Amino acid sequence: MSLPKWGNHRENPAKWSRRRFLQAGVAGVGIAGATLALHPWRAQSKVIIPPIPEGLPTNGNGISPMQFCREFDYGTLKQENGRTVREFQLIGKSTTVQLNDAVSFVTWNFNGRVPGPTLRAKEGDRVRIVFLNQGGHSHSIHLHGTHPAAVDGVKPVRNGNATIYEFDAVPYGVHLYHCHVSPISRHIGKGMHGMFIVDPKQGRPPADELVMVMGGYDVNDNGDHKNELYAFNGLPNYYMKNPIPVYQNQRLRLYVLNLIEYDPAVTFHLHANFFQVYPTGMTLKPAYESDVITMGTAERHILEFSYAEPGMYMFHPHQDTIAESGCMGMFDVMPRPS
Amino acid sequence: MSLPKWGNHRENPAKWSRRRFLQAGVAGVGIAGATLALHPWRAQSKVIIPPIPEGLPTNGNGISPMQFCREFDYGTLKQENGRTVREFQLIGKSTTVQLNDAVSFVTWNFNGRVPGPTLRAKEGDRVRIVFLNQGGHSHSIHLHGTHPAAVDGVKPVRNGNATIYEFDAVPYGVHLYHCHVSPISRHIGKGMHGMFIVDPKQGRPPADELVMVMGGYDVNDNGDHKNELYAFNGLPNYYMKNPIPVYQNQRLRLYVLNLIEYDPAVTFHLHANFFQVYPTGMTLKPAYESDVITMGTAERHILEFSYAEPGMYMFHPHQDTIAESGCMGMFDVMPRPS
Amino acid sequence: MSLPKWGNHRENPAKWSRRRFLQAGVAGVGIAGATLALHPWRAQSKVIIPPIPEGLPTNGNGISPMQFCREFDYGTLKQENGRTVREFQLIGKSTTVQLNDAVSFVTWNFNGRVPGPTLRAKEGDRVRIVFLNQGGHSHSIHLHGTHPAAVDGVKPVRNGNATIYEFDAVPYGVHLYHCHVSPISRHIGKGMHGMFIVDPKQGRPPADELVMVMGGYDVNDNGDHKNELYAFNGLPNYYMKNPIPVYQNQRLRLYVLNLIEYDPAVTFHLHANFFQVYPTGMTLKPAYESDVITMGTAERHILEFSYAEPGMYMFHPHQDTIAESGCMGMFDVMPRPS
Repeated sequence: MSLPKWGNHRENPAKWSRRRFLQAGVAGVGIAGATLALHPWRAQSKVIIPPIPEGLPTNGNGISPMQFCREFDYGTLKQENGRTVREFQLIGKSTTVQLNDAVSFVTWNFNGRVPGPTLRAKEGDRVRIVFLNQGGHSHSIHLHGTHPAAVDGVKPVRNGNATIYEFDAVPYGVHLYHCHVSPISRHIGKGMHGMFIVDPKQGRPPADELVMVMGGYDVNDNGDHKNELYAFNGLPNYYMKNPIPVYQNQRLRLYVLNLIEYDPAVTFHLHANFFQVYPTGMTLKPAYESDVITMGTAERHILEFSYAEPGMYMFHPHQDTIAESGCMGMFDVMPRPS
Repeated sequence: MSLPKWGNHRENPAKWSRRRFLQAGVAGVGIAGATLALHPWRAQSKVIIPPIPEGLPTNGNGISPMQFCREFDYGTLKQENGRTVREFQLIGKSTTVQLNDAVSFVTWNFNGRVPGPTLRAKEGDRVRIVFLNQGGHSHSIHLHGTHPAAVDGVKPVRNGNATIYEFDAVPYGVHLYHCHVSPISRHIGKGMHGMFIVDPKQGRPPADELVMVMGGYDVNDNGDHKNELYAFNGLPNYYMKNPIPVYQNQRLRLYVLNLIEYDPAVTFHLHANFFQVYPTGMTLKPAYESDVITMGTAERHILEFSYAEPGMYMFHPHQDTIAESGCMGMFDVMPRPS
Repeated sequence: MSLPKWGNHRENPAKWSRRRFLQAGVAGVGIAGATLALHPWRAQSKVIIPPIPEGLPTNGNGISPMQFCREFDYGTLKQENGRTVREFQLIGKSTTVQLNDAVSFVTWNFNGRVPGPTLRAKEGDRVRIVFLNQGGHSHSIHLHGTHPAAVDGVKPVRNGNATIYEFDAVPYGVHLYHCHVSPISRHIGKGMHGMFIVDPKQGRPPADELVMVMGGYDVNDNGDHKNELYAFNGLPNYYMKNPIPVYQNQRLRLYVLNLIEYDPAVTFHLHANFFQVYPTGMTLKPAYESDVITMGTAERHILEFSYAEPGMYMFHPHQDTIAESGCMGMFDVMPRPS
């Protein structure tokens, strides 16, 4: 696997679940003095990623949420006719996941996990997604992003077949992919979705970057279009039992995506703190600040913040019945090693 | 009918469903170079409207959605005491519409169609709306916009009676009108609603302008406050069967309005593309870009975009059960004649 | 009780329900000429609060919505070790409220009223909240705002016990507090919530300031997570029967908060007018204008507007079934005494 060179991701993502300290270089950020005072983390030149516990349970999901939240799939770089292509491989699968002690659920997914891998490219990259459908039903990959109609992914790919989606990664932002076979709500709800990040050419300032995909499970699958369980990154209540370690006074960059079907909208709320919002990740400057943001299905944003004090801090949608049905988590904020 | 002179609408709207090429003049748009590179259509001096198929079915609705999406009612200009008044006529009616092969539905509406005509005035116009209620029940017209309490349209007008709402069209933006007789959700849900556009004095840059009103139908009308069918511009799935022809590399201006009752919010999603958002149409510059925007009931915006490649492109709310119940459509993007 | 000195609140809030004329000083507001023309109220140097009717019914709620909407709890200023502390007292209670002629409802609340008192501090204040739980169940106070984990209020306080939350009031904005004991949706839905305003150091321009908290009541309390009644400031339909007197051509500043559980989002719509939005109250300049704004649960904003003409003007969510179930009100706009 090739090693991407930009931003603060200079290592093989496959190594990211191991205990290590990632140090990222300085990036010039044009932030006014007043904001600097409020956000001392703006001036930080190095980002240190906390050691991540290994061996956490996946409950049959292909990846633990702890591993998932900081794992990015940069694909494989190929040279073809003097041009660089970033190639990703996605395989449609069906896997049974243990959502909690009582509930196991047959997911439809990409690469044996819910959500699918977080694909990551750089603005202007030629992107190729090789899709092999072994999911037992017809599926497809529809990406949010700019591309010609021919690769829009609305055409079903039969079980056992393969197809290729190739396009230029524009514009930069936080995007997504999901199966677009009818009924779409069921295919997305059962797990066929993931995030697709397109980084701006100039990169973004160093940060501890985390992915947070909100999903819902209609576990009785009875066609009533109601979710009984919800989750951040696949497994209900996982981050309540296993809070995410992050460091104090360090910029956190959350890539957050709402892919909950059947509920028209949820909020994302951060306890005891405020975040700066980069709408759809399509800006380099924050548009506004809040601690609650409403997101309809398929909306996604970059949220940046830091914690001034160590401790345990919750995050959840403020549709509290949804939070209390599994879509709740915690950050374990620890002093930053100097 | 008088002919409005401004912007890119220099023809009798009644002729707009006929095959023709509308050519609009240059408008000075202050867009920075970087944006121009991303949006070549910004620099276009002429807008060409594709030929629109004639004789499409209306299923008992007074107008086909194909005709509706580009039809604007500019009213009749009258001179009174040295002042110009723009007068509109709306008649409350009840009409049975064939929503699909299986479902016919008794609508309550304005002028025998759902949605009602798209009223269009210029900022500062004196507007007069003559309302004659022949709908069989008490109805009224409540407009969003600035006006005195006396013409706010919350007072029921009995069947067979008439009233006049007169006010100055301010501020410019994408507004709406609907019946405000209780239960309001039922009167709106059964079809008594439409769009009310107030153009800024200086106009907007040339564009192929389209109206998109999202509505829901509680077809069993059983008081459960649940919509079984949804539609863009009145007829479920119409634009899937009859994609809207538009031209490549040409600015499209979508006036989009959510008037779905019983569902708290929907998104509007454009495939394979991004739009620039003018919130409530109350700005002359876009506020942000995305491909998914959340809209609560009665929210409306201007969305601008263009397609770089020909082909079929879907649009729909990303509440996919709503999309799959009729609120889905396609643009048929064709090469622009030079 | 100490008398706060800043902004336009120079009186003892306890006196605010009495008939009087409050006159506020000039504040320098940097508004461009064009906006001034549109909003003559921007230039006003004095704000006059209309006489408020006394003796309005509370229906068992500790406070009438008429009194509530203009009442702010500034706490008590204490000097401790050379530092000023603003201390608030909140008592967890359970009270039966008569929501309408047919329905009485056991609320859980702060200080015997729903919503709880509107706490108000100034940016940078040291705030101390003394919480005594006499509510019959475990409760807590979770505040939105920046603070250490230890005072985040997620730890239940048993009935009969007390605790203290102390922190610095940052950043300025419209925030909230609510019980965070599980099931949170039930504790919030039964009334344990209120607004927490942090004023910017420099204050805001003079205005007639009003608090509007939207809440829902699952009155049959049967676990179906559906609200049968809704209200602004505690009592359904109160402001329809008792319109809020306000003055023409005078800046109104609405602090609006959505704390409706079980419905994912509502809009706030103002009739015949447009408001300027200060998102989460965290800006000193408005971000945009509209007459409909979507708010997920726990979202809140400052909305500023004025009425050019006297008369009765409605406001309500445009989820019309919610409006028609009690979340509707009116402003009674009267000529401003010169």
